[in-house]
Amino acid sequence: MYTYNYLLDFTKRVFMKMGCSEGDSNIIAEVFLAAEIRNHASHGMIRIKDYYELWKAGRINVSPGVKVVHETPSTAVVDGDNSVGMIAARRSMEIAIEKAKTAGTGWVATRNSNHFGIAGYYAMMALKHDMIGICLTNANPLVAPTFSISRMMGTNPIAVAIPAKINPPFVADFATTPIARGKLAVAEKKGEKVAFGFVQDKNGKPSDDPTILKSGGSMLTLGGDRVHGSHKGYCLSAIVDIFSAVFSGANFGPFVPPSVAYLPVLDKKSGEGTGHFFGAMRIDAFQPAEEFKMKMDEWIETFRAAKPAEGHEKVLIPGDPEREAEERIMKNGIELVPAIRKDLVDIAAALDITFE
Amino acid sequence: MYTYNYLLDFTKRVFMKMGCSEGDSNIIAEVFLAAEIRNHASHGMIRIKDYYELWKAGRINVSPGVKVVHETPSTAVVDGDNSVGMIAARRSMEIAIEKAKTAGTGWVATRNSNHFGIAGYYAMMALKHDMIGICLTNANPLVAPTFSISRMMGTNPIAVAIPAKINPPFVADFATTPIARGKLAVAEKKGEKVAFGFVQDKNGKPSDDPTILKSGGSMLTLGGDRVHGSHKGYCLSAIVDIFSAVFSGANFGPFVPPSVAYLPVLDKKSGEGTGHFFGAMRIDAFQPAEEFKMKMDEWIETFRAAKPAEGHEKVLIPGDPEREAEERIMKNGIELVPAIRKDLVDIAAALDITFE
Repeated sequence: MYTYNYLLDFTKRVFMKMGCSEGDSNIIAEVFLAAEIRNHASHGMIRIKDYYELWKAGRINVSPGVKVVHETPSTAVVDGDNSVGMIAARRSMEIAIEKAKTAGTGWVATRNSNHFGIAGYYAMMALKHDMIGICLTNANPLVAPTFSISRMMGTNPIAVAIPAKINPPFVADFATTPIARGKLAVAEKKGEKVAFGFVQDKNGKPSDDPTILKSGGSMLTLGGDRVHGSHKGYCLSAIVDIFSAVFSGANFGPFVPPSVAYLPVLDKKSGEGTGHFFGAMRIDAFQPAEEFKMKMDEWIETFRAAKPAEGHEKVLIPGDPEREAEERIMKNGIELVPAIRKDLVDIAAALDITFE
Repeated sequence: MYTYNYLLDFTKRVFMKMGCSEGDSNIIAEVFLAAEIRNHASHGMIRIKDYYELWKAGRINVSPGVKVVHETPSTAVVDGDNSVGMIAARRSMEIAIEKAKTAGTGWVATRNSNHFGIAGYYAMMALKHDMIGICLTNANPLVAPTFSISRMMGTNPIAVAIPAKINPPFVADFATTPIARGKLAVAEKKGEKVAFGFVQDKNGKPSDDPTILKSGGSMLTLGGDRVHGSHKGYCLSAIVDIFSAVFSGANFGPFVPPSVAYLPVLDKKSGEGTGHFFGAMRIDAFQPAEEFKMKMDEWIETFRAAKPAEGHEKVLIPGDPEREAEERIMKNGIELVPAIRKDLVDIAAALDITFE
């Protein structure tokens, strides 16, 4: 078990060793740890190795000049200058929030970025401004459209954070696939199989092998099969891809630069780096803020009072599982599986710092 | 088989007989028929009876004064004055488009409306302005959150329309459940069962009975069960509900006024009528319009070239199935199942017009 502060400090030192500024390293570490404590370990410490490999390959800019390249009263396009994704993403969300202050809403499309951790972190930045936050990103092409075996899209998550008054906020943060890609990596590190309905092999046959992506397999979209609505998951993933990449000028779909070593770096590009999309909507651009937040309390309490199905204790509000995890993990500590721990020990040794 | 023009004219006359203006009746008929020709019969002629019943019950305003009640440069809240949904919705999307012209984007939340047909119709209004169109709506509470048997949400669709240059536009228009509610109604009219994974009975047991909603059953969210991501469908449906109703001041979740006779009209209200949400984003608020549309052509052509899985001929682009249906149906005519035809004959007789 590790404490939050130990892993935060270690992560910060890793990125400082790579050449990131102390301020940037702080932000990066905070986002990695936000994933761990919210029980999205798939986006936490396991990803440090991906960044370390990118850095070793000279594929990441540790001194970026993130800048706005186009704007209107309610929109902007940001060039992330090939930064660690957290740096471009945090700055982009700040710009969306600034835009919303005057125009009512702010919308920022970001290109030339990289993997940014959990989308929910950026969506939640809006909450303290009495705004709704939205965050989308495209990702490694590992997901096949309905009827296909080609890996054309990422798990392309959607995060939406909405404040309430007395209750904790509504925070939805989910991949547009049945599971996040990192959950396959976690199953693999643990040596476990996964349920059917998440992945198919290279010929399109159902599979329960979490390593299948390494042999040409692909992930399925939310819905699983056509009868049960996989075409809707495909639509969602495609919308996230277009908003993140075509709006911004980033690489779309199959051209997103891989953040995992087993995917080849393609010669063909359709834009610059990975793309994200951010939205901030001022509550009082629609309703007086106090009234809106009280209505959200009513919404949350109404849904909390839904009758549980047999065998279930209660109905959850989006954000509940992560909050429960955060409370538990901050108290008990963060567990790392041996394979991840070994990766971190190796990285620490290579960077001349310590990890125990 | 009926021609487009015959059903358009009939629908127009039905709404004029109810007291709607000729202009409004034209719009309403156009949206009903858009559903039929796009092969979403679930949102087409089958719904005329619902509106007829609402009108007979005095629950609809045929001479509405749809108006903006709050606004910022990029947002507005619209009161639909209890109009036929198409009237409030079309006006709201026009306002979103106007806002986008000056602010880059326009976002309109609409309250005090009713069922508005297919969401895609309004999203597609943005296309000819070189804008992306977005449309959400809440609906009859028939869907249970994950782990619950309470009917708390509608099938709450999401529509997004994105223009291309040479290719037809990308148009996604889908319920946040495995199937649209109307598809159960169509199966019922045809006397057919449905696949498992769409509905559960009043105790939460899986069911293949399309009439189960009439005996306390509920629809499931996209994903089907928790393992396969039903909580993500729940998040999506909840987001649509909050954007449509809490932003606008409409009824949320279980309080949405029913547009079907077998749901009770509740005494408790959480707002006014049904709620919708509309977005218009000017392409050139992000990228030069020509470049963007050429990039969308590249996106579409890349995805069309994805390798089909065994047994499948090709990979589709969102909007393809509806366009293929439109071509076929405009040529061959519109088929109505006997039960729907009988409903229309009865309504025609009651309104002193003819339907054959």
